[in-house]
Amino acid sequence: MEVMNKYWTIKTHIEDSPKEDDFYLKTSTLALSLGPGSKEMIVKNLYVSIDPYQLNRMKGSSSSQKTGGFAVGIAPGQGIEAFGVARVVASENPEYEKGDLVVGVVTWAEYSKIGSNGMIRKLDPMGFPLSYHVGILAFSGLTAYAGFFEICKPKRGEKVFVSAALGSVGNLVGQYAKLHGCYVVGCAGSKQKVELLKEKLGFDEAFNYREENDMNSTLKRYFPDGIDIYFDNVGAEMQEAAVANMNAFGRVAVCGVISEYTDSGKKAAPDMLDVIYKRIKIQGFLAGDHTGLFQDFISTTSDHLRSGKLCALEDISDGLDSIPFAFAGLFRGDNIGKKIVKIAEE
Amino acid sequence: MEVMNKYWTIKTHIEDSPKEDDFYLKTSTLALSLGPGSKEMIVKNLYVSIDPYQLNRMKGSSSSQKTGGFAVGIAPGQGIEAFGVARVVASENPEYEKGDLVVGVVTWAEYSKIGSNGMIRKLDPMGFPLSYHVGILAFSGLTAYAGFFEICKPKRGEKVFVSAALGSVGNLVGQYAKLHGCYVVGCAGSKQKVELLKEKLGFDEAFNYREENDMNSTLKRYFPDGIDIYFDNVGAEMQEAAVANMNAFGRVAVCGVISEYTDSGKKAAPDMLDVIYKRIKIQGFLAGDHTGLFQDFISTTSDHLRSGKLCALEDISDGLDSIPFAFAGLFRGDNIGKKIVKIAEE
Repeated sequence: MEVMNKYWTIKTHIEDSPKEDDFYLKTSTLALSLGPGSKEMIVKNLYVSIDPYQLNRMKGSSSSQKTGGFAVGIAPGQGIEAFGVARVVASENPEYEKGDLVVGVVTWAEYSKIGSNGMIRKLDPMGFPLSYHVGILAFSGLTAYAGFFEICKPKRGEKVFVSAALGSVGNLVGQYAKLHGCYVVGCAGSKQKVELLKEKLGFDEAFNYREENDMNSTLKRYFPDGIDIYFDNVGAEMQEAAVANMNAFGRVAVCGVISEYTDSGKKAAPDMLDVIYKRIKIQGFLAGDHTGLFQDFISTTSDHLRSGKLCALEDISDGLDSIPFAFAGLFRGDNIGKKIVKIAEE
Repeated sequence: MEVMNKYWTIKTHIEDSPKEDDFYLKTSTLALSLGPGSKEMIVKNLYVSIDPYQLNRMKGSSSSQKTGGFAVGIAPGQGIEAFGVARVVASENPEYEKGDLVVGVVTWAEYSKIGSNGMIRKLDPMGFPLSYHVGILAFSGLTAYAGFFEICKPKRGEKVFVSAALGSVGNLVGQYAKLHGCYVVGCAGSKQKVELLKEKLGFDEAFNYREENDMNSTLKRYFPDGIDIYFDNVGAEMQEAAVANMNAFGRVAVCGVISEYTDSGKKAAPDMLDVIYKRIKIQGFLAGDHTGLFQDFISTTSDHLRSGKLCALEDISDGLDSIPFAFAGLFRGDNIGKKIVKIAEE
């Protein structure tokens, strides 16, 4: 028994903004008969996550790739790893059987082969749509939760600034911050997004960064009393302006620097005199270090989702074919909320 | 009763590296008879501290000045505040009497008037030279102690890099780190300093940054296993290279950025991809926030001084007249250890 499998790969390493034709679809046959005792599985992918950080894995080299694990480089021709929800179609792993729903690291493909030490686990959907389990109830959610609560240690009433505030992580940080009693301002790249932030997600204020010339004075306008927490998803001049407008003992959680991913000349050079005299902490983090929070995160987040206090903002494209456009769109700012591709019906 | 008092002031705000002729000596009469109940004092200064951060107070504007307190701007013509040891010559403050030794904020002057809310306290020299109480047993020492132990949270065996390693703070950080069982490398600006670091202070390695062209590879050479802690006294490209060579969960304690004080165009732009993927913390701090550690710091440091495990490296100039040269010398790298000016015999 075998299936024809289609999967995406890159033609060459990608050094700038990704374009659709940086990718091509490969087809191969995948044997469904696995070696007995191999502990391998074949899964059929249902939903996969589309994330900006994946670009760093597609580069020829990036300091991120030295981290290992979830960040190692992806070679041209190779399958592209991604977080996803899938169903087991063949299993030699005694812990799983055909038909099981699983969540974890798969590939941008119709089917993925999961090795004996694959990063995967059984999924209990808990009554939520399966797509929630690649975004708000998975790494995007944990990143927002751990980054905001553990790294920023927010206090009620503090002033929070979130960039890329309609991104998969940013929109959740803003929502968690509002639920925590903070004043929250987000920035995004269109008028429609600004309206969504204020009207749908309850941000106190939001602005379109493309309409602003001097980010320093923009932030001064939105934060007359200064910023206590900056949740950074973009890096570069936005981080500099946030640090310049920060209060004493301010915290910058560096979650992503999307503006620097596609332009290696772009760098954040926050004023170190500010950093010293305002005792600012600039802290990089990865959700993977905070899995100890996972149960707490899941219970808090699912409660808020059920009570309607938290909104799951998803941007779902349909079909394996849509992946390159969806991925390139992240860097154009196309997505509104968590970008997901639905590969197959459940 | 009055005395003729000589004190230094600045001619205009200083925006670049300070030069001797940026300063001039003013003379005024100072009445020794204070208003009864005024709680004021007149003190005769014995030793004053000469510190790089004072330059930020002499600028027309600096983000540091917004911090208030010990960092507010100093106007041309005004006395220049400095930490010092002094003897009370007249007191309307019931807590002090003539002849008391005091330590705290005085001025670069023969005599200083201390207001009712002056930052000053009685000094018990504990058998140490008075000069120790403006440096190693005062803010320089507390800055090194709090910055290293509280901000960096070092573990035995960790790899520590210290810049401006023969400065007032850097030399102590290196010594504390060695006592804590760390591997310590320092950089300084001359061959003689490098020898002192290795031979007198027990640093594992040291190098002359003026002889290095590519700081990134220099640090790779001295830290083949990466840097865990960078104690930053200089900022700019040195910080960038340290971050590039840092291990996962590395910490940068930003104590001072002397290379940026005299050149507002110089900035540190550490690679934020490194910051994220290596989960690096970049933390500014001021010793004044860590006075809760003071007793602990004093008892540890004085024990080590008495047992000879810690070396008090002082660079003392003689006489009020020597202050401008001594201060300008900080930015030329003239000083070896804590720069102090002795103003009068005890």
